[in-house]
Amino acid sequence: MVRVGIVGASGYTGAELIRLFRRHPEAKICLLAARTHAGKSLPEVFPQFWGLEDEKLIAASPEELVREVDVLFTALPAGEAISYARAAWQAGKKLIDLGADFRFREASIYERWYGLSHGAPELLREAVYGLPELYRDRIKTARLVANPGCYPTAVLLALVPLLKAGQILPEGIVVDAKSGVSGAGRQPKMEMLYAEVNENVQAYNVAVHRHTPEMEQILQDKLGKEVRLTFVPHLVPQTRGILATIYAPLAPGVTTEDLLATYREYYREEPFVKVLPAGVYPRTKSVWGSNLVQLGAVADGRTGRAVLLAALDNLVKGAAGQAVQNFNLICGFPETMGLEDSGIYP
Amino acid sequence: MVRVGIVGASGYTGAELIRLFRRHPEAKICLLAARTHAGKSLPEVFPQFWGLEDEKLIAASPEELVREVDVLFTALPAGEAISYARAAWQAGKKLIDLGADFRFREASIYERWYGLSHGAPELLREAVYGLPELYRDRIKTARLVANPGCYPTAVLLALVPLLKAGQILPEGIVVDAKSGVSGAGRQPKMEMLYAEVNENVQAYNVAVHRHTPEMEQILQDKLGKEVRLTFVPHLVPQTRGILATIYAPLAPGVTTEDLLATYREYYREEPFVKVLPAGVYPRTKSVWGSNLVQLGAVADGRTGRAVLLAALDNLVKGAAGQAVQNFNLICGFPETMGLEDSGIYP
Amino acid sequence: MVRVGIVGASGYTGAELIRLFRRHPEAKICLLAARTHAGKSLPEVFPQFWGLEDEKLIAASPEELVREVDVLFTALPAGEAISYARAAWQAGKKLIDLGADFRFREASIYERWYGLSHGAPELLREAVYGLPELYRDRIKTARLVANPGCYPTAVLLALVPLLKAGQILPEGIVVDAKSGVSGAGRQPKMEMLYAEVNENVQAYNVAVHRHTPEMEQILQDKLGKEVRLTFVPHLVPQTRGILATIYAPLAPGVTTEDLLATYREYYREEPFVKVLPAGVYPRTKSVWGSNLVQLGAVADGRTGRAVLLAALDNLVKGAAGQAVQNFNLICGFPETMGLEDSGIYP
Amino acid sequence: MVRVGIVGASGYTGAELIRLFRRHPEAKICLLAARTHAGKSLPEVFPQFWGLEDEKLIAASPEELVREVDVLFTALPAGEAISYARAAWQAGKKLIDLGADFRFREASIYERWYGLSHGAPELLREAVYGLPELYRDRIKTARLVANPGCYPTAVLLALVPLLKAGQILPEGIVVDAKSGVSGAGRQPKMEMLYAEVNENVQAYNVAVHRHTPEMEQILQDKLGKEVRLTFVPHLVPQTRGILATIYAPLAPGVTTEDLLATYREYYREEPFVKVLPAGVYPRTKSVWGSNLVQLGAVADGRTGRAVLLAALDNLVKGAAGQAVQNFNLICGFPETMGLEDSGIYP
Repeated sequence: MVRVGIVGASGYTGAELIRLFRRHPEAKICLLAARTHAGKSLPEVFPQFWGLEDEKLIAASPEELVREVDVLFTALPAGEAISYARAAWQAGKKLIDLGADFRFREASIYERWYGLSHGAPELLREAVYGLPELYRDRIKTARLVANPGCYPTAVLLALVPLLKAGQILPEGIVVDAKSGVSGAGRQPKMEMLYAEVNENVQAYNVAVHRHTPEMEQILQDKLGKEVRLTFVPHLVPQTRGILATIYAPLAPGVTTEDLLATYREYYREEPFVKVLPAGVYPRTKSVWGSNLVQLGAVADGRTGRAVLLAALDNLVKGAAGQAVQNFNLICGFPETMGLEDSGIYP
Repeated sequence: MVRVGIVGASGYTGAELIRLFRRHPEAKICLLAARTHAGKSLPEVFPQFWGLEDEKLIAASPEELVREVDVLFTALPAGEAISYARAAWQAGKKLIDLGADFRFREASIYERWYGLSHGAPELLREAVYGLPELYRDRIKTARLVANPGCYPTAVLLALVPLLKAGQILPEGIVVDAKSGVSGAGRQPKMEMLYAEVNENVQAYNVAVHRHTPEMEQILQDKLGKEVRLTFVPHLVPQTRGILATIYAPLAPGVTTEDLLATYREYYREEPFVKVLPAGVYPRTKSVWGSNLVQLGAVADGRTGRAVLLAALDNLVKGAAGQAVQNFNLICGFPETMGLEDSGIYP
Repeated sequence: MVRVGIVGASGYTGAELIRLFRRHPEAKICLLAARTHAGKSLPEVFPQFWGLEDEKLIAASPEELVREVDVLFTALPAGEAISYARAAWQAGKKLIDLGADFRFREASIYERWYGLSHGAPELLREAVYGLPELYRDRIKTARLVANPGCYPTAVLLALVPLLKAGQILPEGIVVDAKSGVSGAGRQPKMEMLYAEVNENVQAYNVAVHRHTPEMEQILQDKLGKEVRLTFVPHLVPQTRGILATIYAPLAPGVTTEDLLATYREYYREEPFVKVLPAGVYPRTKSVWGSNLVQLGAVADGRTGRAVLLAALDNLVKGAAGQAVQNFNLICGFPETMGLEDSGIYP
Repeated sequence: MVRVGIVGASGYTGAELIRLFRRHPEAKICLLAARTHAGKSLPEVFPQFWGLEDEKLIAASPEELVREVDVLFTALPAGEAISYARAAWQAGKKLIDLGADFRFREASIYERWYGLSHGAPELLREAVYGLPELYRDRIKTARLVANPGCYPTAVLLALVPLLKAGQILPEGIVVDAKSGVSGAGRQPKMEMLYAEVNENVQAYNVAVHRHTPEMEQILQDKLGKEVRLTFVPHLVPQTRGILATIYAPLAPGVTTEDLLATYREYYREEPFVKVLPAGVYPRTKSVWGSNLVQLGAVADGRTGRAVLLAALDNLVKGAAGQAVQNFNLICGFPETMGLEDSGIYP
């Protein structure tokens, strides 16, 4: 059994890691850390865990925490994972960070978009971007994995195959994403109250969301040239789920079937990516609670645009599930272990 | 008092017309027609009207219905308003159609997108497109008003001023719209069950929605040249509200403040259009239940795109409220009569 | 025009008062006070009011505020209305309190259930309980009105006529109430986040809710004897609406029709109380946004129980709408002025 | 591997059985039958199953279906499971019915409350009521299991221990239950449209719901005397989840802690029943997607009432999960096999 620890266990992503690891046959949760809730039992923090009163949340130094585990997961606000990563690195332990602290090659991008100076820039070149469908081989040998953002996971899986195939063009791509509100976390905020969110769809961080440079960096890495995205995220009144609708110039003569064929070929062996038939579109409910991504595409010859659609559960494939997938890769387990479920519906 | 009749009173748009006319000081509802519910009392069909058991739904021929009223409203499936419009025309009565039967100048477009042959093409040139902010003067003297679709109302109000000002360019415009499900009507459909819609955001009619030619026709009329839109509507889990997010190439050097200044100038005297300050974005909840439209804009210099946002209540400014606004115009009443309310919040 | 002021204008009840008074033909809002938001414009606090940037929230002493108005409304946390009430009383102005500070005849009950000592017990005997259907005549001449709680409004309207008629018995009455979350206010609380409320129904304050003694006091006043209620409120995932389901021992031989006949007779002249036919039950959506209450009843002869159902909108008939109704009474206006609308549906 | 078949695979309960059996290590789904969808692939009916296009829905006679499996599950409208049960019985196969056809000892009760004559009354005495916490030993040897209704599962688990302990009294018990709408099934009905359910809480089948005699029968069996329940179910705007709030006369001197101690003792070894501490109440979200039941209790000495609270997921412990639990029992597998997950939250 691999000993696992979760730092930031009192957030939604932390809870989802707990849920997934409780059913994982080769992992054992050894510690749950959450500074502000230290000393509480797990069910006092999350009511789905009544019956597990013996599980306690703790607080301890990075060095102490690292000692107890083989793999540490950090689900923390920007900047806070760095000391854990350094402690893990020095102790020869593995760490999977679900935040943004290790997603960028260059500290300058991180510093510009996150407004923080990076406390361990030397670790950035050690970190591997944890999107297995694009970086599987590198993840397998990584000691520090930067789990992708929820939006980039959806958008990159939709864009990369078609851009590489030349079926869509990289100039003027628009990403219109719709997300449930669990991505905003469990901190009390007036804007996230039920009475504010219900019957409300709204854009936020228009064209300035921090996932923009993350997506652009990976596109540059995969395509060898700069791609700029107009990215507008929206909140919709639901708890989970991201639907990304992507608009890209269509290469001449490309049909819907061409786009879908490229997807099918690219993801033929991928257990978590489902390419839908022509005329069927991804929906967030279809992947709810699962590690699956659904992809769809339409070639609109009338306007010369491809419309690409990707749906995932932001807390699973967009966060904790993908982290478990990465865990399986770095530990040498079958990649789907503990992640076999289809979506829960309705 | 102007005598008003509503045909299609058992649908959501019909109910909203009833709600609005019950508070209108110069109109009196004289008849409510709904074929499948004829003979029922109004509260048997809509539970918000208990106490009004004496109001009955009836069925009668177009000619009979037209005789009883000064202005007839039709809220019917495609094709079904035509016989009412002809009867009203011949009787010298006015008619406001909330469907698509009179929105097109040319029957051929209607026939191609709606799959129906048009039974009264001679009336198409008599009909005025009922978007008061764009066609106020023509509406005032109209006898047949084609109330716009819910999506076109939002999209046209956002696009026209900026296209006319040359601040955005007409090539490659993308419209990503999100709508509550009340637009789908009250007919039982599996896809519209609560358990199917909740926690679900989904695209539909991707690049083939019938409101596309309606928007393009008005843009052509206003700009004098053809504009093609990539239009993708989405359903979000809420009852009311449309948010249209529009992406358009930005003319060189145009700033967010330039876009907003154009809106403010264009809509300076408009009672129902609210232009938000920079950094504030329209949200569907902010206009819920009202006849208001909120507009916002961002110029993303980094990618050379304008992002335009428009929010309205699909059943009010997107349907029944706009119909009342048109009614006020054709009757010579103050345009805001009966429509003074701000949104109901939360 | 009667000059109106609202203290606590940044809460949901305050916003609802603003909405209702903006359409009231005989009232003019002269001041909006909200300590923590003083200096902001109204739309900065509530986005449905963009276009009203000139309306500002202010902070001032009770004495200063009272000077500017004829009638002051207080929508404040427990204990905070008292200084305003004293200032209004001394200045000869009228005050309608939407909180609990003046609902009890005896300060000792207030102090026991609210845990606060009462700063102006001498005003308690001046205050009139503002439930017009039960205390209309006294309200008309009141200078200090204690607007009822949301739950008591629903429960008392359902219980009083049948208890007075002897059709139900006062021993062992159970009140199971379901409420939307807007009643919890706009303060950020983790438990009220969308992601916590969605797909969640839960009891709270089981058998210890503060509205219990309020209901019992009025029942005692109306019936001349003590009645004790088992009262359990629940939160349901919706923004507005209360449904109270009340279980009471049925007097021998009483039928469903008997119960409904009593309701119909008792509320025959009441504009806001709608008694539904046998077999039709009140629903929160049916009264959404309106000042209406729907009542229903079933006599279950098999178990000897009456099941009574009452639905209202907690922010309207349960708070701001009832306050306007009281305002109309103390000002001598028609009781329905500004409150004519039926529910907004769907 | 035990070969499993599901009849009624196109409903929500059917889908939930498929989800649960896909992860069950000792069962293999061999056939999925659904008359109206026969010939379709599974993902054409349920979009969470894209990737499983090879799974087809079929139609065949009961005799043919029974031949292919070891255990057949029927999730069908009332009356329709009978022919399958007879075929299974004659073939010596086991059947678990998730409907009401075999829940009653006496055909006369079934016929009175369901309005159907029973086609195989001789099988009623063979059927075992599939509530493992109350009938585990009998289930283990059963060949025909009647899976309980969703409401009875919650209510019986809350009532039986306390009634048997004499801590609550059987006269005048009131059950007020709140349910998500998935229990109403996937058939299109106007009342179940999203726009009708959202912002709506409503009672239905007041005091005449068909689960009433089912609960009363089991209480009689367990207590040896007749108990009558006033049962009022409500719909709340959510997809899954039942919360039952039960009001019962409290035996003299019984405290909250006494009630909870009885629960803890009674369910000490039960893997799926979680007794919450005093002051913590069950919530539907806490058990969402799991086979767990949460129980809570309050003794209200002031009114002499016990308030009992039980929460479960109507599609899992209230239907498909409990059926899998019964399957494990009749097959001799560990009772929790395939059902280990805690609730998914948020």
